[in-house]
Amino acid sequence: MRSFAVVALIAPPFPARVHPHAAEAAQRSARWATELGLIVTADAARRLDRANAGDLAGRACPDARPDRLDLLTDLVTWLFAFDDACDDDGLGADPRRLSPVVSRLLDVLDLLGCAAPPALLAAAGPTGVALHDLCRRLRDGDHPDLLIRFAAQVRDYLLSLLWEAANREHHRVPAVDEYIQMRRHTGAVHPSFTLTDHARDARPSWSALADPRLSALDRLAADLVCWCNDVFSYGKERRLEQDGHNLTLVIARETGQDEQTALAEAADRFNAGLDAYLALERTVLDGAEPAVTRTVEGRRAWIRATYDWSMNASRYA
Amino acid sequence: MRSFAVVALIAPPFPARVHPHAAEAAQRSARWATELGLIVTADAARRLDRANAGDLAGRACPDARPDRLDLLTDLVTWLFAFDDACDDDGLGADPRRLSPVVSRLLDVLDLLGCAAPPALLAAAGPTGVALHDLCRRLRDGDHPDLLIRFAAQVRDYLLSLLWEAANREHHRVPAVDEYIQMRRHTGAVHPSFTLTDHARDARPSWSALADPRLSALDRLAADLVCWCNDVFSYGKERRLEQDGHNLTLVIARETGQDEQTALAEAADRFNAGLDAYLALERTVLDGAEPAVTRTVEGRRAWIRATYDWSMNASRYA
Repeated sequence: MRSFAVVALIAPPFPARVHPHAAEAAQRSARWATELGLIVTADAARRLDRANAGDLAGRACPDARPDRLDLLTDLVTWLFAFDDACDDDGLGADPRRLSPVVSRLLDVLDLLGCAAPPALLAAAGPTGVALHDLCRRLRDGDHPDLLIRFAAQVRDYLLSLLWEAANREHHRVPAVDEYIQMRRHTGAVHPSFTLTDHARDARPSWSALADPRLSALDRLAADLVCWCNDVFSYGKERRLEQDGHNLTLVIARETGQDEQTALAEAADRFNAGLDAYLALERTVLDGAEPAVTRTVEGRRAWIRATYDWSMNASRYA
Repeated sequence: MRSFAVVALIAPPFPARVHPHAAEAAQRSARWATELGLIVTADAARRLDRANAGDLAGRACPDARPDRLDLLTDLVTWLFAFDDACDDDGLGADPRRLSPVVSRLLDVLDLLGCAAPPALLAAAGPTGVALHDLCRRLRDGDHPDLLIRFAAQVRDYLLSLLWEAANREHHRVPAVDEYIQMRRHTGAVHPSFTLTDHARDARPSWSALADPRLSALDRLAADLVCWCNDVFSYGKERRLEQDGHNLTLVIARETGQDEQTALAEAADRFNAGLDAYLALERTVLDGAEPAVTRTVEGRRAWIRATYDWSMNASRYA
């Protein structure tokens, strides 16, 4: 499906850049995942390698301090590994089995990276230990506001997986509006944005964050990342006959169109969203405080990164 | 079950106070709910009246500015009304019907109280319009940090209802640890705390909020509110044979004890939690910044308020 995506999606008009240490960060992140027990089989290691977390993070954060690029790369690695774990044996389609896993990870998040009771980490397993490690390192960065925001966003991500699991269990395809709202959370884009803000020292005032224009821009950037991913991954997901969690499929179901037409409409939504993003960005940047400008640069980089990484990734080939 | 609770639970050793305007706030809140269409039947109005949101909010915030007491009272009214709506026709036990309702309310939260597209509010219905009104008034308070925190906490509450609905659908009784983690969110205690902080001008620094002692105290206060509620409401819930979302029932299921023994253990947990709270509170208050002290006073008031309101409320009679 890559060739369709290449033809149908407008390339985001932002520079395509990669962090000079992206490859090293990728290798280090693979070791991190292995040492913490996130990756235990050769097959899992191969899948994670193909997912290319280092390329995605390195493109999303082309000018970060290396240690902060490492943190973002590890988050992306963690998300890919957990996503694979949910896919592997039906965990992500069974709310009854997923609920205790999610609740133990919420226990980990509640620690905010502080010293953990060993029993809690033991119960949460390698996924929990690795999540705790991410929080601990973010805590060391001494930006408690970002730490609290990150924990809240990962919590939304984890809770939204229960929505996805209940849908899968019932073979339910959500309506388009519902999908768009929930996809922001199941895609874990917001916590990825927050670690990008951390990497770029982009910490706008709370007034700026609550400004309707910046918060709308933030959502739109998250949507573009998710929709780009959906258009590129549609072919693979279709082959695997997984479920209805793809923009193309929810459009096809809601409109009654065939899937090729719906795929074109999904691409159109991305393109129209990109136009809207560019228009809104101009008003957000007009007279913005420097931290807002840095935040917006991070959002642009994520949109472009997702596009370029999707083009390169064999994950969806 | 009230008499058991009265005997078994240790009364929280904090002063029992009520806001002098609690009764007026209650009347005004009932009008607010009616005018916005949250309450449409005489039966619903009676139930809401019995729930006595004004008494709970007035006890939790005995010294707030009247307009801020109104905001907290309206949140409690909104929570009771939504809880009743979920109970009424099985909505809260059907993830497929609840998911679109939740996603539309998440759309409302994303607005952060800013001007809303009419179509969005129309789709979200009276519950969404009322939630938007709460956000709009919090926004007027000009504390964007509290607004963003509140929206994130209500989001967690809404997403956690999907967990509860999936359990009900499967007649699943969660394990005790899972229940305790998720109950913090399904109980909507955290957004209630945040509006209490707003009412008391209690805005600790982010460093203080990320401090492991204050964040543990915050969770423990939330747990005590939930567990007190569970012990008092157990009798009513048992009669209605609703579901397994009560501390007593999850203990009975996990330990194999009969429910009377499990109820006593639930009460013991509350009492032990209260001891732990008091010990932790001393370390948190030692040399604390004034905003932390104000925050802790708000938590104390909530614990005492829940106990006294539960004693008075005919909701659980």
